Amino acid sequence: MKIIKMITLVFLLCCLHVNAETLLVEKQTFTTKNFKTFGGKNIAEVKVGFESYGTLNAKKDNAILITHFFSGNSHAAGKYAESDALPGYWDAIIGPGKTIDTNKYFVISVDSLANANVNDGHTITTGPSSINPATNKPYGLDFPVVTIRDFVNVQKLVLESLGIKRLHAVMGASMGSFQALEWAVTYPGWVGKLVHVIGAGQMDAWSVSALEHWALPIRLDKNWNNGDYYGKAAPIDGLTATMLNITQDAMHPNMFALSFPNFKVLDKGALNDIRTQPEVVQTLLSRAKLRAKTQDANHVLYLVRASQLFVAGHQDDYLASLSKISAPSLIIPASKDLLLRPEMGRALNSALKAQGKQTDLVELTGDWGHLEGVFAISAQKERIQEFLEAE
Amino acid sequence: MKIIKMITLVFLLCCLHVNAETLLVEKQTFTTKNFKTFGGKNIAEVKVGFESYGTLNAKKDNAILITHFFSGNSHAAGKYAESDALPGYWDAIIGPGKTIDTNKYFVISVDSLANANVNDGHTITTGPSSINPATNKPYGLDFPVVTIRDFVNVQKLVLESLGIKRLHAVMGASMGSFQALEWAVTYPGWVGKLVHVIGAGQMDAWSVSALEHWALPIRLDKNWNNGDYYGKAAPIDGLTATMLNITQDAMHPNMFALSFPNFKVLDKGALNDIRTQPEVVQTLLSRAKLRAKTQDANHVLYLVRASQLFVAGHQDDYLASLSKISAPSLIIPASKDLLLRPEMGRALNSALKAQGKQTDLVELTGDWGHLEGVFAISAQKERIQEFLEAE
Repeated sequence: MKIIKMITLVFLLCCLHVNAETLLVEKQTFTTKNFKTFGGKNIAEVKVGFESYGTLNAKKDNAILITHFFSGNSHAAGKYAESDALPGYWDAIIGPGKTIDTNKYFVISVDSLANANVNDGHTITTGPSSINPATNKPYGLDFPVVTIRDFVNVQKLVLESLGIKRLHAVMGASMGSFQALEWAVTYPGWVGKLVHVIGAGQMDAWSVSALEHWALPIRLDKNWNNGDYYGKAAPIDGLTATMLNITQDAMHPNMFALSFPNFKVLDKGALNDIRTQPEVVQTLLSRAKLRAKTQDANHVLYLVRASQLFVAGHQDDYLASLSKISAPSLIIPASKDLLLRPEMGRALNSALKAQGKQTDLVELTGDWGHLEGVFAISAQKERIQEFLEAE
Repeated sequence: MKIIKMITLVFLLCCLHVNAETLLVEKQTFTTKNFKTFGGKNIAEVKVGFESYGTLNAKKDNAILITHFFSGNSHAAGKYAESDALPGYWDAIIGPGKTIDTNKYFVISVDSLANANVNDGHTITTGPSSINPATNKPYGLDFPVVTIRDFVNVQKLVLESLGIKRLHAVMGASMGSFQALEWAVTYPGWVGKLVHVIGAGQMDAWSVSALEHWALPIRLDKNWNNGDYYGKAAPIDGLTATMLNITQDAMHPNMFALSFPNFKVLDKGALNDIRTQPEVVQTLLSRAKLRAKTQDANHVLYLVRASQLFVAGHQDDYLASLSKISAPSLIIPASKDLLLRPEMGRALNSALKAQGKQTDLVELTGDWGHLEGVFAISAQKERIQEFLEAE
């Protein structure tokens, strides 16, 4: 009996311990007026959400900015409520006592402009679905093209509103790596360290075309109507095809195989009638449709465009842009990445090295492919911690 | 003057020599009634085109069958007229005195069922655009699903109509590799040798989903109308997106980079307005649209399905199917293939080796990616010739 009581006590303490460690977070809002885009246009009002973990110190020099990926938002760590099924995407490395230790650092992340997840109830963003004050109707395609530089400039305004003048580090995965690198190039005085995960230094012709395949199904949907669908049926079928395309590009075939252990090629339904899709496709499409329901199709088009236009420094002379970086860099490609191929991260590392910059490269080698940088970042947590702590 | 005359003479001889070597070919037609599909359906009349190069010998034992890739047809070599801009796709290795020497071999290729190029004036096929004798209207989606096995069975009927009972070899690239392997598994007594280029032994979950992305844009096009568009506006926008998707999957980023040497990421038009696509996308789409004009959207859907259902032997026990092969195999993946990844060809080679089969593997290492097997097959021509000539 004594032993059982002890086990029960240990179990309860463990639970309490877990509960005590759950980082509860709250979405905050930042608003600014007359935001000038990199393309020279004006947005009358920009409103974005942000989250933070840990405490800003008195000197305000312990901030780490996390810049999010294409399909993500500022929910990098913690939960909104104990009952949330899952915490933020990098919760494995952000929190009290973790790799990015919130007992030490003030970690902050900002929802991007034109964020795709505008209908998920946890994203605050300004984009084509926002009301255009000039017409009192949603902007649609009249919303200006926004760029990775614009995302960075909004983040800078958020940080400045908190009195921050310099970042201990900026770190992001995928489209987040673009923003992190853009920070280091454009505001070198701000950036102490750069962690660039599953990313690239610039887009190439193949990547621009690959990204267009995330836009084409939306444009083909009869409900898309040149972006004018607010208050009417949304282009869900097109957006669903786009969501499936993103999964396709972001997951290595090995992970597909692990996800469908009972996969059979000779699908009886698909053999019997052209109208019946293979079971694996039906499953993927139904998952994609669920995701599509919380996203906005036009917002996806704007994120595609922002990504297509990305070259570090947003000017033609890429190497001249890289030369402005003063932060040491840690570049982390995924070896099996089929979207932002590991060659791209390696090329950035080589280019920085050739300019005598302090840079280091480690790879994520798991089977996720591109998503390795989101779901399996822990594989490099020691290296990341060492990099962030180094004097 | 004497020298100039001699140069002129040499030049003329060279031209004559080239002309003499131009293989002029003619499309022929084969027709059969009541074709039973692998899925158990009946096609009242099957009509397909075929081409041959070289002469069938008296013993009828010198035939090499070439099975074509997804976007191809039976035009593997030669020209229809001296004035043709380009010869058949493997003309570099098929012809008099070439790797596959038409002075020695009778080389034959057959247009697939539901061939995509039905409107190019050089393809004869039966598919959803054909007239359904039961209704006197095009089949549309009432056309039965056809499989790689069905393509093989049609080829077998064509060969039998010529009195052929055994092939010296069967060789194909990509979807053609599926047919070549299916021949070796299903009719082992027919196949002397197997050359399997940029292919796979079976589809996996990722590939089935990847192929669906060639179908989704067509299904989204408002003109597609569940496949019922004959005599009305064709779903050209959807088909164009599909054509671009095929190019995307078939070409490695290195070849995109070589194709767009003046590519600039920061595209001014695309930065200025979301409605303007990046120049590289505009160029690719206009090329894709040209291709779409000679193709039929429903036919593409049927080729997607045939490919999705491919597992050697068309039964669940893949290894049992491979065990039926008696032909020695030469497996030729492309190292930079992003579509049918080199791992797939390597896995087939390993599986055959594990069963004690005679098999060998060489890789194409160039920058084309998947298309290496179509445009740069010459890189392995010595190995192919040696394999075909070996006793």
